[in-house]
Amino acid sequence: MSDFPSFNVQHAPIGAFAALTLGHAHTRGGLAIERGRPGEQNVFVGWQDADAALHLLPFFVPHDDARAAFEVDANLRPPPAPSEAHGVERELGPSLDRFRWGPLTLEIVSPRAPLVDPDEASPEACRLALCPAVLVRLAFDNTHGGTPRRCFFALQDDIPFRDLEQDGAQDLRGVALQHLQGLATRPRAEVRTICAFGIDEALASPTFMRLGKVAGLCLEVAPGSSAEVVFAVGVHRSGVVTTGMAGRYLYTRWFEGLEDVLAHALDHAETYFRIAARESEELLARIPDPARRFFYAQAVQSYYGSTIALDIDRRATWVVVEGEYLMLNTLDLAVDQAFFELARHPWTLRNLLDGFADRYAYEDSVRCPATGAWRTGGIGFCHDQGVAMQWSPPSHSAYEQANIPGRCFSYMTYEELTNYVLCFALYVHHTRDLAFARRRHELLTRCFDSLRARDLADPAARTGIMQGESSRTGTGAEISTYDSLDASLGPAFGNTYLAVKAWACHLALAVTAQHLGDDALATAAHDMAEHAARTLLTAFSAEDGRFPANLSRDLPSVVLAIVEPLVHPHALGLHPWPAASIHARLCARLREHLVTALRSGACHFPDGGWRLSSTSANTWLSKLVLVDHVARGVLCLSNDELGPDPFPTYARWLRASGYWAASDQFVDGVAMGSRYYPRLVTAALWLWPPG
Amino acid sequence: MSDFPSFNVQHAPIGAFAALTLGHAHTRGGLAIERGRPGEQNVFVGWQDADAALHLLPFFVPHDDARAAFEVDANLRPPPAPSEAHGVERELGPSLDRFRWGPLTLEIVSPRAPLVDPDEASPEACRLALCPAVLVRLAFDNTHGGTPRRCFFALQDDIPFRDLEQDGAQDLRGVALQHLQGLATRPRAEVRTICAFGIDEALASPTFMRLGKVAGLCLEVAPGSSAEVVFAVGVHRSGVVTTGMAGRYLYTRWFEGLEDVLAHALDHAETYFRIAARESEELLARIPDPARRFFYAQAVQSYYGSTIALDIDRRATWVVVEGEYLMLNTLDLAVDQAFFELARHPWTLRNLLDGFADRYAYEDSVRCPATGAWRTGGIGFCHDQGVAMQWSPPSHSAYEQANIPGRCFSYMTYEELTNYVLCFALYVHHTRDLAFARRRHELLTRCFDSLRARDLADPAARTGIMQGESSRTGTGAEISTYDSLDASLGPAFGNTYLAVKAWACHLALAVTAQHLGDDALATAAHDMAEHAARTLLTAFSAEDGRFPANLSRDLPSVVLAIVEPLVHPHALGLHPWPAASIHARLCARLREHLVTALRSGACHFPDGGWRLSSTSANTWLSKLVLVDHVARGVLCLSNDELGPDPFPTYARWLRASGYWAASDQFVDGVAMGSRYYPRLVTAALWLWPPG
Repeated sequence: MSDFPSFNVQHAPIGAFAALTLGHAHTRGGLAIERGRPGEQNVFVGWQDADAALHLLPFFVPHDDARAAFEVDANLRPPPAPSEAHGVERELGPSLDRFRWGPLTLEIVSPRAPLVDPDEASPEACRLALCPAVLVRLAFDNTHGGTPRRCFFALQDDIPFRDLEQDGAQDLRGVALQHLQGLATRPRAEVRTICAFGIDEALASPTFMRLGKVAGLCLEVAPGSSAEVVFAVGVHRSGVVTTGMAGRYLYTRWFEGLEDVLAHALDHAETYFRIAARESEELLARIPDPARRFFYAQAVQSYYGSTIALDIDRRATWVVVEGEYLMLNTLDLAVDQAFFELARHPWTLRNLLDGFADRYAYEDSVRCPATGAWRTGGIGFCHDQGVAMQWSPPSHSAYEQANIPGRCFSYMTYEELTNYVLCFALYVHHTRDLAFARRRHELLTRCFDSLRARDLADPAARTGIMQGESSRTGTGAEISTYDSLDASLGPAFGNTYLAVKAWACHLALAVTAQHLGDDALATAAHDMAEHAARTLLTAFSAEDGRFPANLSRDLPSVVLAIVEPLVHPHALGLHPWPAASIHARLCARLREHLVTALRSGACHFPDGGWRLSSTSANTWLSKLVLVDHVARGVLCLSNDELGPDPFPTYARWLRASGYWAASDQFVDGVAMGSRYYPRLVTAALWLWPPG
Repeated sequence: MSDFPSFNVQHAPIGAFAALTLGHAHTRGGLAIERGRPGEQNVFVGWQDADAALHLLPFFVPHDDARAAFEVDANLRPPPAPSEAHGVERELGPSLDRFRWGPLTLEIVSPRAPLVDPDEASPEACRLALCPAVLVRLAFDNTHGGTPRRCFFALQDDIPFRDLEQDGAQDLRGVALQHLQGLATRPRAEVRTICAFGIDEALASPTFMRLGKVAGLCLEVAPGSSAEVVFAVGVHRSGVVTTGMAGRYLYTRWFEGLEDVLAHALDHAETYFRIAARESEELLARIPDPARRFFYAQAVQSYYGSTIALDIDRRATWVVVEGEYLMLNTLDLAVDQAFFELARHPWTLRNLLDGFADRYAYEDSVRCPATGAWRTGGIGFCHDQGVAMQWSPPSHSAYEQANIPGRCFSYMTYEELTNYVLCFALYVHHTRDLAFARRRHELLTRCFDSLRARDLADPAARTGIMQGESSRTGTGAEISTYDSLDASLGPAFGNTYLAVKAWACHLALAVTAQHLGDDALATAAHDMAEHAARTLLTAFSAEDGRFPANLSRDLPSVVLAIVEPLVHPHALGLHPWPAASIHARLCARLREHLVTALRSGACHFPDGGWRLSSTSANTWLSKLVLVDHVARGVLCLSNDELGPDPFPTYARWLRASGYWAASDQFVDGVAMGSRYYPRLVTAALWLWPPG
């Protein structure tokens, strides 16, 4: 089965933190809620011949017969094994995953109706966008078959399933686990609900075994005909689901229960299929490269599987979960995901900005590392807002801790401050939502004051970049989002990448101040941007043809990631500048840096992938997308300068992350962390500007 | 560590379907809700020396460092391993489990305040009885120590813990997982909340790591002193938790949330400890045999861990879960658990009787196996009421199915009918609740009619026993509660055990009719009992000195279990009868059967345990308790006749079921099914009649 297209996809509704994960061979997956990794269900999909022979896709691990716990001396048959599924074709879109295996077609569609602001949209629009279910089409071509066949889709859980029809849902045929999850179609003679201890027994038995842990739907296909069944696989979790702040799933505003969810999904199946087909077509037209198209599709599916739309005090609250880490609304992910959200649902970015402003900001002091002297700091923003459905106390993240000797788990004060400002600027620039900007005008000023407070105190000595450590770090030191990379990118102080980001941040702040008509702030921010540009230009080594990794310490690393922040002035329409501008000169140097770095080969893995830093085998795909976008789309490197396209390699890495669906962090091309992750939607820059 | 007292105990509150399971070495356990098996948490209990050396009880499986997912290239230390815990002493009571290991004492107390009918009791009594928490006392004797020590109790989950204090519970120190579960004590200088990636790190770190998955409490013990901390380990699950009928946990009537639960448990810790100590003392006085005492204690703990007190339509509904099988209110368990419930909280038995009467009864026809002819049947009762928090549709169990060729999963119509009548009779006889009896008088009559309808149709040919198969079985045949035993006990038709039970059932019905003043019914039932006695006496083989296993078929088995039903007439005060009575003659034959069977050795395992049937290695401890009780307490066999006491063997089997706490079903002395089971409380007969 070496040709099997074996990788998981989170087939997920929007905002339900739930997914039907399948696609990876010989592991469990299935439907899971709030898990941050694939479920623990076996998935049985396939068909049965008239002689009872089973053809099963490999989405399960052969299991013990649950009957054994009842009949201790029973002669149990060996459990069914996955078939040697050769020749399976798979086509993945951003909301569609299609398998073709001989006569069988399995198609999974994630509902992607436009997600307008739920506090303002009609109930119909909200029901359509936030219905917590995915749709599955199972089709079988028996036109050349001489005997009847059955095709089926069933899940195995560790508790028994219930029968929706017997429980009173007359217009549904399907199964459920308690109130929480289930699958169903509309009643039809050819379709039957099945449930037993094993898939073979479930297909053979005419009745629903209420102790059965394998359950689903079975479609009879007469000889000489084809048939299909469309069913919904949905979830519904009512009541308060978060601590710290009491949040309920937003979908519970419009859906009373699981049966309601399943019925709605079935009623609107055509709409969801049409949207999914259109998304796939558009993608084919707009991203001709198959490696990038696969990347984008996998990224979108994983992003939505990590989303939670909550109702807190009757207001919509948007959460993106940090994949396997389960952290809520990680700010250094949000800034990268902003491009995607602005294209799809800008209100979620505003919602995040409000959330950080109202609950997850703090005030600190700043320590000068050289002298140890303290000065007034300013506003800072938390790394995240909590973890595992647990909102952190106000002004605290789940991640950050004081007195950390290493890199991971210290504070990211300076970088999160730039992230907040960049999100703010991107949101206002792209939506022209001046009402929001005015409401947060004072906050923006405080952000500027805080940025300046972290520079050198003497106005004559301004550098435009971070020059002090937040008091929040205690005896530790600030870090960057590249926490687990090496010394070239991990620590914040002197970090060249962060200095470029400071420059971009000041420019973004100036743009936003202009939108607000606050000329004084715009000028002051622009001055700071010039300071930063000057600081960086001074550090450029004409001899080496590149920037150092760190402005304060000698490090051997060649760092590609320092060009990443250029994505922001570009997205804000600032780039290119007039040639005489200091910003144009900085860009030219960044271009030179990139060309030098790529030419040197120091930032290449043997397989052609790029390193963010020459000294580390640890890299993040979402960030490589940003670097690639800056290289191609912003700095316009020639094909010669770029060298071979690394995306076939990235797509291979991503696909090989297999069980973990969309992983972001790779060490020597192997998924090692940041698994099941939302951030790969930086790929939205390939479709930039939106709409 | 071969001397370690390694067996799990479900330390459980009443009616919360939750337990803190620990005691078995080198496996996971911990706190779990609605699981029917031990949890998946590691439990870290032990102490730390001044040099940081750890002493850890073996209640965990060494785990990967969760830090690895964040710091992909970190040099991780090996995880801590359990200590070689020699010399651990353990004392188990029905609501108390005490470990002593050198200077450390760990005591776990399950709250056992009297459980009066929650629809009638005061809120204070209900809060006390149904508070969903257990209490733990952790004590350390450092009086001879020259350095400070820390002792600790921590759990490891697969999601991070939150800090109760930081989340606003100022009067608590402890940790929680979402809204669902947590542990806490009252604030004191010596006690600290800990949380990190590993137990060693949690103890070393001064701060609460919000991404940590190992969390608990740590007590500082100064040199030359002893200290202890008492904390509560509780759960709280709000909202609707069952399908089919919408049930909420009854405790949510009186407890708003987890913090409320923990605070209440701490406020009443002394009461719970006092009750537990008194229970242990009383047990020591009333059950001098240590094997039986261990059995009883383990039985009670496992029973309460399997209980769910629900609120359905503002009425209390009592559920006993069938252990690992998760079935709700299995009727053939209920009849055996009746002795325990009558001693502790008779209203739960009434509640069960009402539940079966109102929703889980049905009407059937009866088929004569010889002729295939159909006749009118009558009322029948389902095997159970659902599974896994899912109420079955009315008139259907989760277990029973039509057209079953084997034994397991067919209908138990006749036996469940006798079980219902026996529960009814036991309840009315022991409570004298004539209001209930009158309310269900018509139902009792219907039960009698149904019993008689299952006898031969010709009044002159009445046998008093089952003579037809329920139409519910379809093409199958009725079975007995001994479903997975062999042909000697599994099938219902001709089953001698079931014939004796029919006799006992008619006698019980007659007693109840007398309580109701319904002389006609009493007489008719008594006639049926005499028919049954006559049928049985006819079948007795004077030559063999015993009854056959089956009245209709020749089987080689010698069956001890046929004497089991004698427990009922005895508990109803009917035994002994005047010597001339046919019932006395039947008892004498049953006694002879038992003596013959025991003398033959056919019903002995090599290790001294008894077999329910000579032809099967499959046996149930709860049922062996009934047989033993009949042999000793009812038929008064002499020590010579009884032979060596099998209870040391049973206690050894039970203890060796280890991970599964109280298992009921053993094959050759090895726990193979019915694990984590509630039915061992048949041991309540050792304290019969209840005080």
